[in-house]
Amino acid sequence: MNTTSIINGQPQQHLPVTDRSISYGDGLFETIACVDGRLQFWSAHLQRLHEGCLRLQLPLIDESLWLEDIRQLDIGDEPVVIKLIISRGSGGRGYKMPGDIQPTRIVSRYDWPSYSVELFNKGGCLKICHTPVSVNPALAGIKHLNRLDNVLARNEWNDENIIDGLMLDASGHVIEGTMSNLFAVEGERLYTPRLEQAGVAGVIRQQVMELAKKLGYECEQINLSVSHLLNMDELFITNSLLGICPIRRLQENAFNDWPLTRKLQQSLDMDGASLAI
Amino acid sequence: MNTTSIINGQPQQHLPVTDRSISYGDGLFETIACVDGRLQFWSAHLQRLHEGCLRLQLPLIDESLWLEDIRQLDIGDEPVVIKLIISRGSGGRGYKMPGDIQPTRIVSRYDWPSYSVELFNKGGCLKICHTPVSVNPALAGIKHLNRLDNVLARNEWNDENIIDGLMLDASGHVIEGTMSNLFAVEGERLYTPRLEQAGVAGVIRQQVMELAKKLGYECEQINLSVSHLLNMDELFITNSLLGICPIRRLQENAFNDWPLTRKLQQSLDMDGASLAI
Repeated sequence: MNTTSIINGQPQQHLPVTDRSISYGDGLFETIACVDGRLQFWSAHLQRLHEGCLRLQLPLIDESLWLEDIRQLDIGDEPVVIKLIISRGSGGRGYKMPGDIQPTRIVSRYDWPSYSVELFNKGGCLKICHTPVSVNPALAGIKHLNRLDNVLARNEWNDENIIDGLMLDASGHVIEGTMSNLFAVEGERLYTPRLEQAGVAGVIRQQVMELAKKLGYECEQINLSVSHLLNMDELFITNSLLGICPIRRLQENAFNDWPLTRKLQQSLDMDGASLAI
Repeated sequence: MNTTSIINGQPQQHLPVTDRSISYGDGLFETIACVDGRLQFWSAHLQRLHEGCLRLQLPLIDESLWLEDIRQLDIGDEPVVIKLIISRGSGGRGYKMPGDIQPTRIVSRYDWPSYSVELFNKGGCLKICHTPVSVNPALAGIKHLNRLDNVLARNEWNDENIIDGLMLDASGHVIEGTMSNLFAVEGERLYTPRLEQAGVAGVIRQQVMELAKKLGYECEQINLSVSHLLNMDELFITNSLLGICPIRRLQENAFNDWPLTRKLQQSLDMDGASLAI
């Protein structure tokens, strides 16, 4: 494991045990692809982080501070993953927020995950998780640190052919993958689950919705059940490291051809919205 | 703030930034009253922690290890709060649990909260929180580290007369207080919210249910709405530090007399089930 971290601007590998990320998951994170020394979709990540801060009543961190921290990491020439965490900092026992919030910011570098080229050519498999997604409209959409549902769901499989597992709410609505958002294609229309009650509104999900519109396709946020998905023409998942990844199997259903997914893959400019560090 | 911590058996104030409590809230905690050098309801706390470990697929920690850690704290003669945390230990990026889980255990001492005698004599006030409780049957009941809903709810008031705020689910069922469980009394019957979908099954809640039965009162776990509560004869909340605390006001409704609550307060033996450290 090849990791280094900058905490509040200093090279550090330890956090005070009083940090509220430990006690309550009281904070947010972002996972950002850094390729050829460029932070992909940087502004979109920062924008979502800011929205999360407003929702959780966390102080906003200046863009320049994040960038100074990232520049202290030993990044190298290979693609790497940059993870940002902001927490509400240290506090005593009890849920009440400290009067004077001194947020903790953590910037870490991780190795790029070993996705195979085949995954993108032949598509990945999806499973349906038994672990339900946590439902709370006050927390839905933002990328907060309360992720036990994702942890339990992700531990439901070991098969490397399975790229992700779908998490459902109690009503049987598919919300998202453990680490991705889902899109379904029916003819020339795209669908993606509504996220008002649960789930993370992914940066690439937003890019794909805008791109689809630009290319003349309708994209609707709706309630989707598993049986809906099995009747779709194409499925794909998105996240900041995978970009757009076609799905070749969901349960017993095979998908072999992804004309619209391929068009979106070709049109999504990962570098266009990037920032050189 | 007067805190000391023992991490994995060593006096330590810092945790590796790779700990999964930080990234995902991947763990559990217990808050235990230590009065006259005795850990109140120790076995019940340990039992709930073990049940939580089974639910989260965390290794069980031996009782003797927790006790050795606690004995390293500088406890003194005054009542103190002992907090236990178990996390899934360090891991790389990604939700998947490490193959070889080396859990982190944290034992901390905190000052006793400054509850007034008046609170117990005249009762505390309750508010209704706007922040909904997070709903997930896979996580309901256990005292896990994903507590952002409690944090947001607890920050809805500053009035010191308000002892706690009630959190509701999307269907308007009252689930719990931000830091307590709720009981309602109607004649000689007790009611407390069902916790299959959300909430923490408190140690004192369990004790009160058993005590009520022993004293000949029926106690039922049901769905309770705010309007139900306003028609009750008595309300009280419970947690490990408050014990049983009568409620004198909920919204505009006053409660002035708590005959059954008083009987339970007098009968709840805080020391009977304690362990001398």
